[in-house]
Amino acid sequence: MKIGVLGTGMVGQTLASKLAALGHEVVMGAREADNERARNWVAKTGGSARGGTFADAAEHGEVIVNCTLGAGSIEALQRAKAENLEGKVIVDVSNPLDFSKGMPPTLFVDNDDSLAERIQRAFPKARVVKALNTINANVMVDPGKLGDGEHATFLSGNDHEAKEIVRGILGSFGWKQIIDLGDITTARGPEMYLPLWIRMWGALGSADFNVKIVR
Amino acid sequence: MKIGVLGTGMVGQTLASKLAALGHEVVMGAREADNERARNWVAKTGGSARGGTFADAAEHGEVIVNCTLGAGSIEALQRAKAENLEGKVIVDVSNPLDFSKGMPPTLFVDNDDSLAERIQRAFPKARVVKALNTINANVMVDPGKLGDGEHATFLSGNDHEAKEIVRGILGSFGWKQIIDLGDITTARGPEMYLPLWIRMWGALGSADFNVKIVR
Repeated sequence: MKIGVLGTGMVGQTLASKLAALGHEVVMGAREADNERARNWVAKTGGSARGGTFADAAEHGEVIVNCTLGAGSIEALQRAKAENLEGKVIVDVSNPLDFSKGMPPTLFVDNDDSLAERIQRAFPKARVVKALNTINANVMVDPGKLGDGEHATFLSGNDHEAKEIVRGILGSFGWKQIIDLGDITTARGPEMYLPLWIRMWGALGSADFNVKIVR
Repeated sequence: MKIGVLGTGMVGQTLASKLAALGHEVVMGAREADNERARNWVAKTGGSARGGTFADAAEHGEVIVNCTLGAGSIEALQRAKAENLEGKVIVDVSNPLDFSKGMPPTLFVDNDDSLAERIQRAFPKARVVKALNTINANVMVDPGKLGDGEHATFLSGNDHEAKEIVRGILGSFGWKQIIDLGDITTARGPEMYLPLWIRMWGALGSADFNVKIVR
């Protein structure tokens, strides 16, 4: 599949590498066409991997993975250009974290709205699916490293087919407990989970954990 | 132990019954001294179980369990009287749910504050411990009913001894994965988890579930 990954940070690098390893044609998008981290990633990854602007990555991708910082996600997607997002699946991995008031971060949108909904409203012709925002990057792409590999990840989105495409990608990463929460408004749930995730991280002393739904 | 349970709803009834069954002397407190649900609970429970006002229950208890609706919790505790809460452990099971804007409910406090913190500020001489607010009532008192019985519950509070007392009570219920998140500000985590819990409830079709931390 042709996939555009927006963002060159830890999450973008980790997801882009996994997707490339699975045989997808990945373009890593950054604010500027010649981004050092994207260039290093391309050199390390080889094959069909390429770097470019946010717009280059979005134009290339059938699926676009938003791995930018939440505070900059709308602007990054604007730079990616609405026409490059039309009809595309946007996997929104970002979190609306506000670090401006010190640690731990708060959320800059919550309760009666979410970042995923803001993105869906800003790009109404894109098919936004919230996913993977509740887990550390290295666990996102290797769920088998924790426990017996059965623990939870969530999907929220208005488009059923888009969610099935994302479910397929998550399945290829090894995810077994993939919970479809419902439409894009349900993204408020996994986004508002972050404050608990951050405190669990503190209490457990490691970000290598996740939650498993037990029934 | 002498325990005052504030609230006569499902959560109060379930916790009061479990605590009485474990041999504690439980007084169920309500707004009025002669509350029908409290009366029925006393008749059903027998032994040392009694009913009374919020103040009666608080005066009786070494440990006070706040099972009132979040929107009424501060007022209920004011009725319980600050002098009856001094030095006492308040187990805050409530959630700051706002049902006034329709379903699903939103939170009336979150992000940079929590209901547990409001209670601690309103009653600075009480020792508030947030606990059990992330689970359905019947699971609170019988964690063994789900999976292999190993799944997570959280503690937040400023007083270490108070948290150890609550940890002991949870252990007597059968809880195995009891995570101390830290001081009372960490209660923002488990309170902000509620919007995800509510959507999981919808997706799973049952409130009989919980999350287990997998490492």
